[in-house]
Amino acid sequence: MATRRFKATDPELDELYGRFADQGLQPLWELAGLLTAEPRVQAVPYRWSGRVLRELGTRAGELVPVDRGGDRRVLACANPGLGGAPYAVGTLWAAIQYLRGHEVAPAHRHTPAALRFVVEGEGVWTLVDGDPLHMGTGDLVLTPSWTFHEHHNPRDEPMIWVDVLDLPVVAALDAIFFEEGPTEEADTRTAVLSNSEARYGGGPGLVPSGAAPPVGRSPLLAYRWAETDRALAGLLEATGEGDAVLRYTDPVSGGDVMPTMRCEIARVLAGVATTPARQTGGRVLCVLHGHGEIRIGAERFEVEPGDLLAVPSWTPWSVHAEAEIDLFSTSDAPVLEALGLLRAETCG
Amino acid sequence: MATRRFKATDPELDELYGRFADQGLQPLWELAGLLTAEPRVQAVPYRWSGRVLRELGTRAGELVPVDRGGDRRVLACANPGLGGAPYAVGTLWAAIQYLRGHEVAPAHRHTPAALRFVVEGEGVWTLVDGDPLHMGTGDLVLTPSWTFHEHHNPRDEPMIWVDVLDLPVVAALDAIFFEEGPTEEADTRTAVLSNSEARYGGGPGLVPSGAAPPVGRSPLLAYRWAETDRALAGLLEATGEGDAVLRYTDPVSGGDVMPTMRCEIARVLAGVATTPARQTGGRVLCVLHGHGEIRIGAERFEVEPGDLLAVPSWTPWSVHAEAEIDLFSTSDAPVLEALGLLRAETCG
Amino acid sequence: MATRRFKATDPELDELYGRFADQGLQPLWELAGLLTAEPRVQAVPYRWSGRVLRELGTRAGELVPVDRGGDRRVLACANPGLGGAPYAVGTLWAAIQYLRGHEVAPAHRHTPAALRFVVEGEGVWTLVDGDPLHMGTGDLVLTPSWTFHEHHNPRDEPMIWVDVLDLPVVAALDAIFFEEGPTEEADTRTAVLSNSEARYGGGPGLVPSGAAPPVGRSPLLAYRWAETDRALAGLLEATGEGDAVLRYTDPVSGGDVMPTMRCEIARVLAGVATTPARQTGGRVLCVLHGHGEIRIGAERFEVEPGDLLAVPSWTPWSVHAEAEIDLFSTSDAPVLEALGLLRAETCG
Amino acid sequence: MATRRFKATDPELDELYGRFADQGLQPLWELAGLLTAEPRVQAVPYRWSGRVLRELGTRAGELVPVDRGGDRRVLACANPGLGGAPYAVGTLWAAIQYLRGHEVAPAHRHTPAALRFVVEGEGVWTLVDGDPLHMGTGDLVLTPSWTFHEHHNPRDEPMIWVDVLDLPVVAALDAIFFEEGPTEEADTRTAVLSNSEARYGGGPGLVPSGAAPPVGRSPLLAYRWAETDRALAGLLEATGEGDAVLRYTDPVSGGDVMPTMRCEIARVLAGVATTPARQTGGRVLCVLHGHGEIRIGAERFEVEPGDLLAVPSWTPWSVHAEAEIDLFSTSDAPVLEALGLLRAETCG
Repeated sequence: MATRRFKATDPELDELYGRFADQGLQPLWELAGLLTAEPRVQAVPYRWSGRVLRELGTRAGELVPVDRGGDRRVLACANPGLGGAPYAVGTLWAAIQYLRGHEVAPAHRHTPAALRFVVEGEGVWTLVDGDPLHMGTGDLVLTPSWTFHEHHNPRDEPMIWVDVLDLPVVAALDAIFFEEGPTEEADTRTAVLSNSEARYGGGPGLVPSGAAPPVGRSPLLAYRWAETDRALAGLLEATGEGDAVLRYTDPVSGGDVMPTMRCEIARVLAGVATTPARQTGGRVLCVLHGHGEIRIGAERFEVEPGDLLAVPSWTPWSVHAEAEIDLFSTSDAPVLEALGLLRAETCG
Repeated sequence: MATRRFKATDPELDELYGRFADQGLQPLWELAGLLTAEPRVQAVPYRWSGRVLRELGTRAGELVPVDRGGDRRVLACANPGLGGAPYAVGTLWAAIQYLRGHEVAPAHRHTPAALRFVVEGEGVWTLVDGDPLHMGTGDLVLTPSWTFHEHHNPRDEPMIWVDVLDLPVVAALDAIFFEEGPTEEADTRTAVLSNSEARYGGGPGLVPSGAAPPVGRSPLLAYRWAETDRALAGLLEATGEGDAVLRYTDPVSGGDVMPTMRCEIARVLAGVATTPARQTGGRVLCVLHGHGEIRIGAERFEVEPGDLLAVPSWTPWSVHAEAEIDLFSTSDAPVLEALGLLRAETCG
Repeated sequence: MATRRFKATDPELDELYGRFADQGLQPLWELAGLLTAEPRVQAVPYRWSGRVLRELGTRAGELVPVDRGGDRRVLACANPGLGGAPYAVGTLWAAIQYLRGHEVAPAHRHTPAALRFVVEGEGVWTLVDGDPLHMGTGDLVLTPSWTFHEHHNPRDEPMIWVDVLDLPVVAALDAIFFEEGPTEEADTRTAVLSNSEARYGGGPGLVPSGAAPPVGRSPLLAYRWAETDRALAGLLEATGEGDAVLRYTDPVSGGDVMPTMRCEIARVLAGVATTPARQTGGRVLCVLHGHGEIRIGAERFEVEPGDLLAVPSWTPWSVHAEAEIDLFSTSDAPVLEALGLLRAETCG
Repeated sequence: MATRRFKATDPELDELYGRFADQGLQPLWELAGLLTAEPRVQAVPYRWSGRVLRELGTRAGELVPVDRGGDRRVLACANPGLGGAPYAVGTLWAAIQYLRGHEVAPAHRHTPAALRFVVEGEGVWTLVDGDPLHMGTGDLVLTPSWTFHEHHNPRDEPMIWVDVLDLPVVAALDAIFFEEGPTEEADTRTAVLSNSEARYGGGPGLVPSGAAPPVGRSPLLAYRWAETDRALAGLLEATGEGDAVLRYTDPVSGGDVMPTMRCEIARVLAGVATTPARQTGGRVLCVLHGHGEIRIGAERFEVEPGDLLAVPSWTPWSVHAEAEIDLFSTSDAPVLEALGLLRAETCG
């Protein structure tokens, strides 16, 4: 029985503490740190260099076959504050995935939801429940909870991309399920336009009449850079401000793309510094374009494209753009919002 | 006192009927036709010819100034079954509006919501709460309930478009309010891109983060033909069927564009006939492209671009396309849905 | 063809008007009164005396069998402003129904939803989809849209109650359906506790786990006076104010009891006058207890139990209680709310 | 830097692993147990004896003042599978709290939400944001997230009750906030009826009209045994089955009482065995009345009133009643439901 054994100097109390331990009980008055004035966060502000990620991914591509172990050639970002857990922040997994030319990563599915974001490169196809989605620079591709997904690279060139998953949340809720795909052979189809985009990607506010898409997550599985870029430019023009933030949403319900992860992209014009802000829950940043400084808590990181950064819960962060920065961001805000636990404030 | 006076042959009963009338009462057992097995609809299937609408609009343009009477040069479609009421079906107003070159229609607002659909032409700007929206062929432009709206035509050429309003519903609910605009002068601004589109029109599923758009109606006020056309083509490709129907929706909530009107557009490929279907509530059709036959109840209408058609409640209708037809449609389905009164069925 | 024929003094214009009429068109600029600054309401403030309703109901009981005509011995309140329509206000039907001892009113169903409210008396059973609901003083009983309902009176004494229906709304939407019950024989079962109340009436916030009740309307079909009385007293005590208003709601969704009608009950303490207030949409009042004055627009009505009153749209009304008044109220507010058309204000 | 250091026999790979560790990266292919076919749950089926809890609570009452350490004399149930964490299952805190006669536990608030359930006894008042709620046998009392709460016992007799909190979930999301009450003095008011119950507890479906209660949690803070008992009896009568389960809900929205915890109570008639069922997420049971056997996974526990039991995620459980059992239950189902992760099945 692993229950902690507390000690008291008073012999009667010490005996009582012994009985507590025997019975699987712990006295609240001896438990420190349960209820703190503000979140006591283990994860620390951190940056994984895009240059290093690419270099080590490439090296792994040379040394490690894609079928070694877990079907995927993935390097997980392990926040140094989390005691060895392979998580970028307490609630989010972030990683890079590397696929060499003509490699395939066969189908499986799991309850943790995943998203892919491409900083540079193109040519790999991700099939989600059999629908082939091309991945290119600046694209966001979704693989919602319990959808089969597989990757294949019909080109000669390797490709690298970023994965973000809600795995820590699903694990904390004891709700991990996993299943291999129906066939061992990878499906290597390609398509000019995915079925998902053909149905739901025609334009803002245009959806198939009478369709009954899956509840709780977006039926649109890819958000293309050309449109994201245009939307960012439009929003900046409409507001006249120095930065703009878009949310990627389910075009049918208007909710977040998936029930556990909020995806956003910010554009910060050259010379602009955003107001520091913080919110409960974790966040992972991915620099798409530009360079400058990203401040997280007391840390200042010089950033360039491909960098991944960890923003721990309730830690102020801001962007100081030297050259115009495009910054992709994933947070667990939908989880905190659903549970009435989201607090957000600017720290100007 | 207008209460009806029923008559009975039995003198005692007749006397009682007299007392009913004196007291503002009516005996249910003398009231026929209140509760019918199926809707007893007054509106009839009908078609207003686009060619005639254009011709008479033009003639009105020559003879009637835009300020004569009610600020707008509008011809309302009056369904012959409705006893002289200027409504296309019992719940929808449909009309054409004609604006000559360099004319303006000054700002006002009203609780009935309106939409504009353009069959042919361009160049007029509709300002909705001051946001200038260009109107061109195939575009859908919204003027939601209680938004100020005004029109101006900076060109030399006249322009004609279709208006649909929920006026009969708002009138039946005794909820009509109307207000003149804040200034007598029309606002004749134009813009390359409306503020509404700059914020909400970048792409499917891309919305400003943290925005708090108006509840219950779309913040996106224009749906452009280029995207609608692309979305129709994509949906047809994805399904492989002979026709496709898109719904225009609020890109933030996923609901209908306005709480009282559902907007849809169908493309029916040449040679295809759709399955007859019916639903409770009224519908107005507007042919954008193509020609063929539209059947409504027992009527068959040869249609061409610009034709407006009335589909009464619970009346089966279908499209038989000779040349590929694009068909814009407005129904009161959101009203019936909200009240638990929507029934729909195919009549194949 | 019933389209109105407008006339103009200018011969060219008059000829154009003739062509409009031929083509089923009406010129907006000749249509007055479509868009008014405030609702132009046809219904007028009115009161039907409870004493008279009871007297004439009794007399109808003597002269008219329950099967004469429409299955029900019902006297409909016809607002004098509505040109002979049997409606209390533009959107609500109100009536009294009278059932003699040992009479039955056999089952039927219709899309218009109904409610029963009992001012005095007891002993009749209403079966809703076969579930026997006893009706007693102060009870509210629901017969939602498209539920079979029938009444039987196993006692010797007659009983009278109030019916309110959304019939005018359903008729305006061309969505009336009606069906006779599955059997000609009335079901004359009784029960100590209805199935509906056994499942959903145990207490506030207690619902069967995992149940899937019908969407959009309350699964609880009876609201008993004992609890309503206790709830009114509790609310008055909690607020310390001179009047209190409760809303009857769906205990599972929290919404209104039915999608088209909001039911409320007010208690106004002796000597208290409520602040005049108005809202869009119609309302029917029913005095349960007490006496005093109810002011509606410019009218003042001395009221006593059993009186029914019509509050037209956007008309201020208030209660001036001499003896403590309990006032049941039905409005079409859910309809206006769903459509974004509800405006409400106090007129103090 | 705490990132794990993996080892490989291949020197090149081993060097690469060293660089991974230097850069805060972990190779997915060396991580076992991340994605399992079914949840690999650490918590084990467990039972804390009500008799022992009462005995040790009483002993703590003798030895430990209420102000020692954390304001509260609380014994936390520590599941032996959780490595010393003071949680009953991975997502729920369960404990007993003991207050001697005339003791007070002063006000504080925290983001973790709490509920109290009373197996036996009465006389303590819990004030929630200043509203005094009496606690008696069979009552459920809520202290939602971030509401101030304090307890006082004006009697001579001690009282014991059960606390359940969502603390593990809030901690996993790094969203713990805590604040002492506004005054050091405890508020020792009592009241015949709490304000919360006076407003929202009058009867099922009766709520104050126009009230704007807090969003996302119940405004009704106490659910009384008399009504729960009546509702259980009614449901059993309505269904004719051998067991019945009620959900405690927000009477205004119909949702769960709080966004992180679902509260239910089951009655299992003597001699009845329920069908084994399981769902993702954890559950804590509390026996209120009766005795028999509760089976959780492979374990069988003879239970009596006051026993607390841990049902780990995805573990089948069932009740075998010798004498009629009333069983209160708290699960994290609203969390899993909101995130699309709730799976439930019977294991018959």
